[in-house]
Formats: sequence, C-alpha cells, structure tokens
Amino acid sequence: MRKHIFNAGPAVLPVPVLEKVSKAVIDLDGIGISILEISHRSKEFDAIINEAIELMKELMNIPEGYHVIFVGGGASTQFAMLPMNFLKTKASYLETGSWAKKAEKEAKLFGEVQIVASSADKNFTYIPKNFTIPTDVDYFHITTNNTIYGTEIKTDFNSPVPLVADMSSDFYSRPVDVSKYSLIYGGAQKNVGPSGVTIAIIKDDFLNSKQVTDRIIPTMLNYKTHTEANSLYNTPPVYAIFVVKEVMRWLKTEIGGLENMKKINEDKAKVLNDYLDNSKMFIPTVPNKEDRSLMNITFVMQDPYKDLEAAFLDHSKKYGIVGIKGHRSVGGFRASMYNALPIDSVKVLVQAMEEFEKANLK
Amino acid sequence: MRKHIFNAGPAVLPVPVLEKVSKAVIDLDGIGISILEISHRSKEFDAIINEAIELMKELMNIPEGYHVIFVGGGASTQFAMLPMNFLKTKASYLETGSWAKKAEKEAKLFGEVQIVASSADKNFTYIPKNFTIPTDVDYFHITTNNTIYGTEIKTDFNSPVPLVADMSSDFYSRPVDVSKYSLIYGGAQKNVGPSGVTIAIIKDDFLNSKQVTDRIIPTMLNYKTHTEANSLYNTPPVYAIFVVKEVMRWLKTEIGGLENMKKINEDKAKVLNDYLDNSKMFIPTVPNKEDRSLMNITFVMQDPYKDLEAAFLDHSKKYGIVGIKGHRSVGGFRASMYNALPIDSVKVLVQAMEEFEKANLK
Repeated sequence: MRKHIFNAGPAVLPVPVLEKVSKAVIDLDGIGISILEISHRSKEFDAIINEAIELMKELMNIPEGYHVIFVGGGASTQFAMLPMNFLKTKASYLETGSWAKKAEKEAKLFGEVQIVASSADKNFTYIPKNFTIPTDVDYFHITTNNTIYGTEIKTDFNSPVPLVADMSSDFYSRPVDVSKYSLIYGGAQKNVGPSGVTIAIIKDDFLNSKQVTDRIIPTMLNYKTHTEANSLYNTPPVYAIFVVKEVMRWLKTEIGGLENMKKINEDKAKVLNDYLDNSKMFIPTVPNKEDRSLMNITFVMQDPYKDLEAAFLDHSKKYGIVGIKGHRSVGGFRASMYNALPIDSVKVLVQAMEEFEKANLK
Repeated sequence: MRKHIFNAGPAVLPVPVLEKVSKAVIDLDGIGISILEISHRSKEFDAIINEAIELMKELMNIPEGYHVIFVGGGASTQFAMLPMNFLKTKASYLETGSWAKKAEKEAKLFGEVQIVASSADKNFTYIPKNFTIPTDVDYFHITTNNTIYGTEIKTDFNSPVPLVADMSSDFYSRPVDVSKYSLIYGGAQKNVGPSGVTIAIIKDDFLNSKQVTDRIIPTMLNYKTHTEANSLYNTPPVYAIFVVKEVMRWLKTEIGGLENMKKINEDKAKVLNDYLDNSKMFIPTVPNKEDRSLMNITFVMQDPYKDLEAAFLDHSKKYGIVGIKGHRSVGGFRASMYNALPIDSVKVLVQAMEEFEKANLK
C-alpha cells in the first residue's frame, strides 16, 4: 500500500516515473545494460542529459543565453560556489529563513554581506516587503521558498543588480520569468528528481562578464568548468539526471507544463488552507495568506490543544500519512505538497484532521 | 539479453544488487515509499547509511580512529578538497597518469607541489620504482589504479608523511592496509556503486591535527563538516548510498570478503593476460606484468594489424561485448574488469579475440 508522502525532501515522485526508472535499473530501454552501468560518455547518456536540459529549458521557458548544468554537493555547495565565483566586494541577501542564513554564512567567507531585509524578528513567518535592493552590490540573493517556515516568494523581482535565487524547493512548481535572474540553483530532491544532483541555470552574460578574476577557484567549483563541458567534465550523477529527465517528461506530457502544474498546486494548497482557516484546533503559522508557500504548509495546534500534537501524529499514521512532523525550529506540522503529491493525499490529510478535531474538540 | 559490460566507469554491477535496488525504487522493503522518496532524516535511511559504513569498515578492516564519509562532486572535487584542507606549504605527488596530474593541478592552487616520480616519459605505461618519499611535505599522494593506462600500485607504501590515495578505480577490489593511509578517497562508480557519490576514509588524527587553520574553507569543502554530521550535514545522495550498501552486502555474503574478491579478480585478469602474452595480433600496453592493473587491462594491435582495430571492435559487438574501446590517449582497447564482471564475460572476450586472430592472422 503506497503511503501519502508529505516528506519535505527527498520527496514524493510521480508513480509512472518511479515505474520507468525502476525498470531502467535492470535494463535501459532493452540495450542489455542497466542505467547504473552505462558510460557517461555513451550515446545513450548523451541523449538523456541533452533531453533533460532541453525539457528544463522548454518547460521554464528559459531564454537563449543561459546554460543548464548538473553538479553534485547540493544547494549547500552552491552557497559557497556563488560568492567564490561572483562576490568581489559586497553582496546583498534577503533573509527569509535558515537556508538563506546558511547562504549568507558562506558568502561572508568571501566578502561583505548586506542583509537587505529579514523576517527573523517573527521566526521567518512572513516575507519582508518594501525593501530596496541596493545598486552597489555584486548580486542580490533570495531564497524563493522557505521549506521550514512555509513561506514563498511568488514574484520575480526587478533587480538593479544580478538576481540570484535558491529555488531548491519550488522550481518547476510554477512558471518563473527566468530572464529576470542571472543564476537560479536548486537541489533536485523536491520537485524535479531524487537527491544527489543540483541544478544551476546560469546566464552566460553574467558568467562571462561578472566572474571574479583574482581569486583561486578550484576547477570543480568554477561554473565555467561545467558550462563548457556540458556537465561532463567528470562523471556526473547519471541516475539522478536520468530521473530528472523522466520527471520533466511527466511535467510536459502528463501535466501539460508549468501553468497547469501551478493550478494543480494551488488547488492542493486550497484544500488544506480552507480547512486550516476554519479549524478551531489547527492554525497556520504563516498569518499572511499571500506569503504562504504552495509547497509546504506549516501549522500548529492552537491553545488549548497543544499537547495533542503527538496524538495527532499517531492518528495520521492510520491513514497512511507520512512526513508531516514539523521542523524542530517551528514545531507542529508541515505538509509538503510538491508537484507529484496527488490531491487525494491532501484530502486524506484533511479528513484525518477533521476526524481528529471532531473527536477531540473541547 | 544482458551484455558483457567492460565499461571503465560507471561500470558493471552485480545482477542481484540491480534486482534489489530496482525493486526499492518502487517500494523500499514494503514501507509504501520509494527509496527515492524517503527522508534522509528517516530511521530507514539511518539504518542504510550506518550499515553501509559498517560494512565498508568491516570489509576493508578499517581500524578504529577512522571516519567513512559520503560526499558529492566526484574524486575531482577531492583533488581540491585535499589541498584546501591539508596543504600548508608543500605536498608531494606520484605522477602515474592523467588523474594524478589533475590532482596535482588542484594542489598547485594551494601550495608547492613536488613530483616525487613520474612515468610520463613512457606515456604512464609503468609504475615508477625506487623513489624516496620526502619527509618535509604535508602529505604524499598516490593514484593506486590508473584506469586509462592499465597500471596499478598494489603495495601499501610505508610513508614517513601522511599517505593519501585516490583509490577510485580499485578500492574494495582487494584488501588494503588502511592503517598506512591518512586519507583514501574514490568515486563509487567502479567497484562499489553507481556514479553520484564519492567516499572518503579519513584518519581522525590526521584531520584533527593536520588540517590548515589559516585558510578559508567553505563548509561543504571541510572534511570536518561531514565527519561530524555522519555525512548528513545536508541531503546526501540517498540512492547512490543505498546501492553502495547493497554492493557491500554482496561483497560480504556472495563473495566472502576482499581476499576472495582479489582471487576472483586475479583469475579474471589471468584469463585475458595469458591470452595477450601469447597472441601474435594483440599486445598489452603495460610491459611489466607486476605493474598491470587487475581492473583495467589495456592492449593494442601490433604491427601489421594496427588498421584492424575498428574491425575488431565491430566483431566484438556480435558477442555482446561493450565498453572495450581504449581511451584516446592510449588507443586500442581497454577491458575494465571490475568486481562485478563475471569471469564468463572475460572468457567471451578472449574467445572473440581468438576467433578474430585466427581469421585475420597473416
């Protein structure tokens, strides 16, 4: 019996993709070799990585003049690669959560970091508004979705300086105007694939004209190594890229693109948000509805039910629900509802909440 | 029909492992979640990574006082991480091939690099002997197996300074006296798993007392980040680690450990080497038998048959043989015979060679 998978990442993947990529582990398209055994220099892998890149470009409408690269090490490695390659004197960061803070920490190793705005004062339960992006910095960095806190930046900013975004937990969940960004990066393990591969979408112009020239950059940490070698400077994570390709195919053919995906994600979020906004037991942790993430909805139990959280977790297991325990820095619950989560899973969660509320309401 | 897979890496994996890890992509041990979907903070993954580490320690008899870590970015990232963490003033390298040279190149970014000995004069067709490891360097680096050139260092050196080895293409193919090494690293994609994960075996004492203190090391490039977090500082490549665990189980239960594995690999190499040493058409590129790799056997056609190489490649395909085209810097052929390659595949290759030789001998 397949569970209702609300994991924050690695996360739920589409069942038809799982079936396809499971078969390929035995034999890739009948060639007599497993996907785990093919050479990264083979014509089979060439076709896989090129299709993955083409579909990523097509689905997010990436303009000419951008490269899509696959690297290892997670977004956490990007936190350092970004300033190592582009921070000459000063960079600005929007501080919307602990991942943003980790990105700042690495940047501080290489130069001055200016926090343009922060929502730390209210435990990151909102997206700062009405800030001004400085014009004297090398780039402006944002974290579009804050998995832990359940907030999301849904607008593509007009930035006077190169705009860089960690989109680990919401890219390919909705359309994005890539032309406004100089660099977008993210781990694959939320909406686009399994863990083990990190994707960067980088503007050639930014890379060619804004890269630092007076700092030692190890070969593997230089974006140019990967753009120039089509991510094949060394052996890439073949299987993870193969799964990404299949997820992109699913997004295109089964879902019909990112506009449709966004509508589906909005429908899913509405099911849970509608319930939360009327519940007398559960309360969302992000008060401002426009700041609420479509990907991760965080909620806690309100007084006088706080001590029922463990009981509700137990209750939810009877429904086959997994992954809803909240991050320790927020507490309560987090329902991560990435692309591949069926709306039926959300309905089952709401049913579990309704029944629990009914049985326990004072 | 399964092929005879002589790929240089990513490479052949054991069929029972492929069957197990294929099933887990649909459902991990009946828990209703795919291995690609489980959280890296789950009890399921805890059990997986800990078993992988324990088996790696047990099989290679790793003494107390060492950590086994899983990171991304391939051995190419280790080429830079090593000097970034440990090269204070000078390091020495044994130059046995192009991977060794790539490791040197990254080290030169951080300090002085001394080439203790090199076999570049004869296109790396031998392992240098009778060199002295200097005593005034931060570490001595070797590349134990040189995939491209078909040579292998089969002794564990007594080094007066910390010994560091890139064992990407031969670790877990034979017993190694780990106590002689301060750091062993390697990509998984030859003998221990699929591409997408890099393994480092690091001596705590080396890490705690010899790490540089006056250099900026990004968090993800600091070995301590990974030893202290049991490779869970950020999301690791879950699937690749899972496959490594299954390969280790296979090594232990099906093969019976590294002594047995070594014997099997010697038997396989003997089948091909015996033929090569008697052939009038094919000739091994490594003249000195003791320098020949058990993992990759490289050979070319001798005069007057040089122009038959393409014809033999075609001929070999009829037998279901893949991956034997030699690297462009050596030419001819390379038969990579990693742990999981059955001896029958080697016999089929020799049969193909014998039949071709018989039909074409002048």
